[in-house]
Amino acid sequence: MKNTFGSSVSITIFGESHGAAIGAVLDGLAPGIPVDEEFIAHQMDLRKAVGSISTARHEADKVRILSGVFNGKTTGTPITFMIENQDQHSRDYGELAYKARPGHADFTAMMKYHGHQDFRGGGHFSGRITAGIVAAGAVAISALKAKGILIGTHILSCGGICDRSFSPDLENDILSLGSKEFAVLDDSVKAPMTERIEAAKNNGDSVGGRLETAVYGFPAGVGEPWFDTLESMISHMFFSIPAVKGVEFGDGFALADMFGSEANDHFRSCGSTACTSTNHNGGILGGISSGMPIIIRTAVKPTPSIYKEQDTVDMRDMSDTTLTIKGRHDPAIIHRARVVLDSAAALVLCDQLALRFGTDWLAAQN
Amino acid sequence: MKNTFGSSVSITIFGESHGAAIGAVLDGLAPGIPVDEEFIAHQMDLRKAVGSISTARHEADKVRILSGVFNGKTTGTPITFMIENQDQHSRDYGELAYKARPGHADFTAMMKYHGHQDFRGGGHFSGRITAGIVAAGAVAISALKAKGILIGTHILSCGGICDRSFSPDLENDILSLGSKEFAVLDDSVKAPMTERIEAAKNNGDSVGGRLETAVYGFPAGVGEPWFDTLESMISHMFFSIPAVKGVEFGDGFALADMFGSEANDHFRSCGSTACTSTNHNGGILGGISSGMPIIIRTAVKPTPSIYKEQDTVDMRDMSDTTLTIKGRHDPAIIHRARVVLDSAAALVLCDQLALRFGTDWLAAQN
Amino acid sequence: MKNTFGSSVSITIFGESHGAAIGAVLDGLAPGIPVDEEFIAHQMDLRKAVGSISTARHEADKVRILSGVFNGKTTGTPITFMIENQDQHSRDYGELAYKARPGHADFTAMMKYHGHQDFRGGGHFSGRITAGIVAAGAVAISALKAKGILIGTHILSCGGICDRSFSPDLENDILSLGSKEFAVLDDSVKAPMTERIEAAKNNGDSVGGRLETAVYGFPAGVGEPWFDTLESMISHMFFSIPAVKGVEFGDGFALADMFGSEANDHFRSCGSTACTSTNHNGGILGGISSGMPIIIRTAVKPTPSIYKEQDTVDMRDMSDTTLTIKGRHDPAIIHRARVVLDSAAALVLCDQLALRFGTDWLAAQN
Amino acid sequence: MKNTFGSSVSITIFGESHGAAIGAVLDGLAPGIPVDEEFIAHQMDLRKAVGSISTARHEADKVRILSGVFNGKTTGTPITFMIENQDQHSRDYGELAYKARPGHADFTAMMKYHGHQDFRGGGHFSGRITAGIVAAGAVAISALKAKGILIGTHILSCGGICDRSFSPDLENDILSLGSKEFAVLDDSVKAPMTERIEAAKNNGDSVGGRLETAVYGFPAGVGEPWFDTLESMISHMFFSIPAVKGVEFGDGFALADMFGSEANDHFRSCGSTACTSTNHNGGILGGISSGMPIIIRTAVKPTPSIYKEQDTVDMRDMSDTTLTIKGRHDPAIIHRARVVLDSAAALVLCDQLALRFGTDWLAAQN
Repeated sequence: MKNTFGSSVSITIFGESHGAAIGAVLDGLAPGIPVDEEFIAHQMDLRKAVGSISTARHEADKVRILSGVFNGKTTGTPITFMIENQDQHSRDYGELAYKARPGHADFTAMMKYHGHQDFRGGGHFSGRITAGIVAAGAVAISALKAKGILIGTHILSCGGICDRSFSPDLENDILSLGSKEFAVLDDSVKAPMTERIEAAKNNGDSVGGRLETAVYGFPAGVGEPWFDTLESMISHMFFSIPAVKGVEFGDGFALADMFGSEANDHFRSCGSTACTSTNHNGGILGGISSGMPIIIRTAVKPTPSIYKEQDTVDMRDMSDTTLTIKGRHDPAIIHRARVVLDSAAALVLCDQLALRFGTDWLAAQN
Repeated sequence: MKNTFGSSVSITIFGESHGAAIGAVLDGLAPGIPVDEEFIAHQMDLRKAVGSISTARHEADKVRILSGVFNGKTTGTPITFMIENQDQHSRDYGELAYKARPGHADFTAMMKYHGHQDFRGGGHFSGRITAGIVAAGAVAISALKAKGILIGTHILSCGGICDRSFSPDLENDILSLGSKEFAVLDDSVKAPMTERIEAAKNNGDSVGGRLETAVYGFPAGVGEPWFDTLESMISHMFFSIPAVKGVEFGDGFALADMFGSEANDHFRSCGSTACTSTNHNGGILGGISSGMPIIIRTAVKPTPSIYKEQDTVDMRDMSDTTLTIKGRHDPAIIHRARVVLDSAAALVLCDQLALRFGTDWLAAQN
Repeated sequence: MKNTFGSSVSITIFGESHGAAIGAVLDGLAPGIPVDEEFIAHQMDLRKAVGSISTARHEADKVRILSGVFNGKTTGTPITFMIENQDQHSRDYGELAYKARPGHADFTAMMKYHGHQDFRGGGHFSGRITAGIVAAGAVAISALKAKGILIGTHILSCGGICDRSFSPDLENDILSLGSKEFAVLDDSVKAPMTERIEAAKNNGDSVGGRLETAVYGFPAGVGEPWFDTLESMISHMFFSIPAVKGVEFGDGFALADMFGSEANDHFRSCGSTACTSTNHNGGILGGISSGMPIIIRTAVKPTPSIYKEQDTVDMRDMSDTTLTIKGRHDPAIIHRARVVLDSAAALVLCDQLALRFGTDWLAAQN
Repeated sequence: MKNTFGSSVSITIFGESHGAAIGAVLDGLAPGIPVDEEFIAHQMDLRKAVGSISTARHEADKVRILSGVFNGKTTGTPITFMIENQDQHSRDYGELAYKARPGHADFTAMMKYHGHQDFRGGGHFSGRITAGIVAAGAVAISALKAKGILIGTHILSCGGICDRSFSPDLENDILSLGSKEFAVLDDSVKAPMTERIEAAKNNGDSVGGRLETAVYGFPAGVGEPWFDTLESMISHMFFSIPAVKGVEFGDGFALADMFGSEANDHFRSCGSTACTSTNHNGGILGGISSGMPIIIRTAVKPTPSIYKEQDTVDMRDMSDTTLTIKGRHDPAIIHRARVVLDSAAALVLCDQLALRFGTDWLAAQN
């Protein structure tokens, strides 16, 4: 499988940055889930470019649903989301047919596709392709929400500025993120973060950052001990989002420096089940959900399109040359990537829940 | 899929810590690859307990090959590795049938398997199950080596002590790790690391660490832009190894704090292809191998079996109780996990190569 | 997986008979394969309704390619085919929202989708959805042809009239079928067959038939001994085509009545390889291609939409009722199904070849 | 995937006819299902050679369970079945290292595995490998039975002699087959059938036959409309059983000659659901189960090992030669194959049920 992910609930994505259209086919979602086109549009807006800290390319990103929705609800058969491309400036990209942009996939695409790839705007490698994930993810997020499962992602750090972490009142933290264009939990960090992004932009440069995703209300007992652990499935999906270079769960890399006595989460009676008094393991033990919040942190590298002159090769003969990128590019994508991670996580979790509890579960009344 | 990973080359693992036997079925490997049983035994030894810093449980871990090898070579049909369990002290585990060990999978196993899981020694969740991965991985490592592809993992940090990173002379770094029981590149850090492990052990505690894996000689153009990116496939596999809580590629999380101008790897002419002058992206761009070394860092949490009294629940009624673990346990597994990561990486890469270049490629003469 | 088939080369289909659009995403095909839109249109025409023996519904079935083709060739990334629905008479279907048409999927759809399915015109169960398979299959057929692999299907029997079987000059038999609207090898059987179809139509009834598919030039050594045998993969695909109720290879069911001495195909030297003097096994032995022509016969049941009154249930309360179907329906689909089988076979075989010989093989120069 | 089948419930098989051991790993079955080793042994006996109409090779076929069963029940983790090979006469097979047996997979194995295959006794292609399917299938059959789902297969025809079809009292028909060594519904056909087999044997020849499988009590609403139709999944599995060359559902190929008015099954009120007054469609409509009995007929070709001299090639240089097979072989396998089909069907259906209703369903109390 290449552009398809998932087993019981699956997504297939297609399209290129400057092709006719991009989109996604979402298959296997339970029949009878309400499809809220306004919410889809809202999520698409969150993914879109925002003011001075984003690319000047503006796409309406209007989602057209071609199949799988009837009387406002999922039918249980494939839902197809199509987004026509409109604001393409393909003339900007001439030289990039043969000069490999550093940090981009141009060179590896050439090694794999032998020059047949659509190089315009990054083609099928473009972050633009995540629009299909966001459209499909919006339906998945709605389905999870109806079952009491909430997902939220915030910018944990950007340009050296850190947001606070999720608080014990996770439900409200997630709800507070819902409508923010620039998703930070502590609103006072928004200004310094955007200043750093703008400073980078003014310097022809770019910045990356870290995102923190939390899942609230996810039931215990979902996942597998081997190969398809919950961490495996989530990381598999997250590492397919462009620019993601690290994924950790719970305290992640910090666990490597702890003693067992610090890292272990103690169980405590919690109604008819058990909770843990800490959550260093991020809601997953032995690959299976514990019922505690699932915590994921993701490293996003700085956008590789910068305006400084860079060394590279001319791929026609692999000779040395230099490149100065023009066109419209994001000085940061961290604020746009957050809704992609929410969507990606929702798709993984819907699949896991359907595998565990059956294909009807997501639409079943509690 | 649960205990099976891979598409063209796949592994299926089975067994419980205190069951009759553990093992693996390795399917799809090209016919005609020499199977070196001594090398398999050598790899099994690297995974085994070492002296004072490991569990007192000693298993011969003798691998019996049940199928798939004929005249000393792979047949192309499933290779089955069986390892009989021998040194089991199941009497040590009585109380653990109902008390959830903090940091372990006991509670999540109960949520998933409703009490039918084999709880003895962690059952199917035990790190012991990685023995099958190591046996199968040994054949995969041999196959890759014959194609000029080397894999090596060292202990980048343990108990706060750091090893040096891989040097530009990666080939020799990897070869130097091959026979080390305690895999560090700078031998002078072995003593302080093992001291920290022993100190933790003497304190009834445990430590974790970070592992760094490098792949040398892997061809460019392997992987996918979406969903089955090379990072996705490797992280999927690595996050199924017990105690792994973080995976990063190239500079990973450190990339989040860089400018684009620092993070981009510039391309340079390199014979008939291109190399990069730096390798911040760890040999993978757009999900596809660039031909540069693949660099993976993995966070391993401290082993959760410690000898201090801990709070937990009695799972029979989810009431609060305390637990003091007895029996034989590792104060660290970082030195044993390194060969598991080598093996796991080899299995993923064999699968990717077979998908890309066909099922015979791994056995083909260059 | 539900609406996705294939591993290295895969197809995902979507749409409903009376929805906005239907289509397919074809993923994993080698980069650099010419995409001939005229040939796609030609194949779509073969699938369309023909004169008096088909439904009066007329769709332009214009295929729009949304992605995956650049400079007239495959890019190696997903190719999306979209066909907008136009000539819908949804008003014809009111009563069918709750009365289960005998022989159709209405009742089983209700059991699976709980009333959320799009029932109009059969919704996602409609034979119309095969248009996406034909569009994608056209590219697969072209790719195979460039490698010397030809696929052809003829109507072996319909309404009790039989066509002759494929002759030893298989290549020319297949080529002769290419442009026939009503695909029979012996043109003299066309008139009596169509008469039987028209007679059934005039009687408010319908007929089925048998199709015979041959693959010429397929290389030996492709397939698997277990589970993913070539027969398994082809039958898996063929049994997902509506109305198919039987699939056999070589002499198929007739083999059950032979002696071994009659059924065995003797090998004979054939240049640097071996052929068989007969082909009772239909080009597949032990699940793997032998290099002889692959022969598949498929049973197609009569179209279940007939104009006679039939007993059925009202699915609102599962009470007994009767139903007289109105609207536009095919008295036979056998002549339209043949191009669907060609397309379906081509998709399976492209996948098998890519798995066996690598992702670039289909586009490689011989 | 090669030797693995299934998604939620999967089986992986391994071994060669003359290797150390054969077996299977059954993964994903719900925890808490009783594992009855006597029933497994009983099923293994049904697959074994019977008297004068079978091979003289006698294997104890004692099944050793290596994992996945604890306190007599499934744990939910992989169950491994190992059967050691014992009665091997490998000396019989020398010449067969290079002469391709007509009707066997020797030639296609050579094309795929390039001479590295274990040719002894057919190696991994041997019908002996079905023993693992039968062992695993026995647990699946037990699980289904506890949910009221019964599976039975009888010899519908052999050597030109026909058994009666299943009667309306399907439950008792299936129960009556359970313990029969030679599975016919009408016991009076046993003698003539075995006579035909013995006659073929005495003539150095072999016979095939047709098997009919019925599934009773399978719930409605299971399966998919496209690609993974219930027919697709069952045929995929059945066509991987050696010697199967045709599969049909319901009236199968006979439907091709019916009118729609004859083939359509009329729905009738049936308690809170609907039944059909006939079952021409074999319990599956639109790829989804209707709740009616699932009916499958399978063509089994005559065993290709016959004692007559046959033309073939010497695969060392592909030159013409002749071959007279020696050793111990079955003049028919139809009576042994029936339990393989029961087992294979059970594995497919368990997977389908787990995908539909969740991983715990099979073990849940009604």
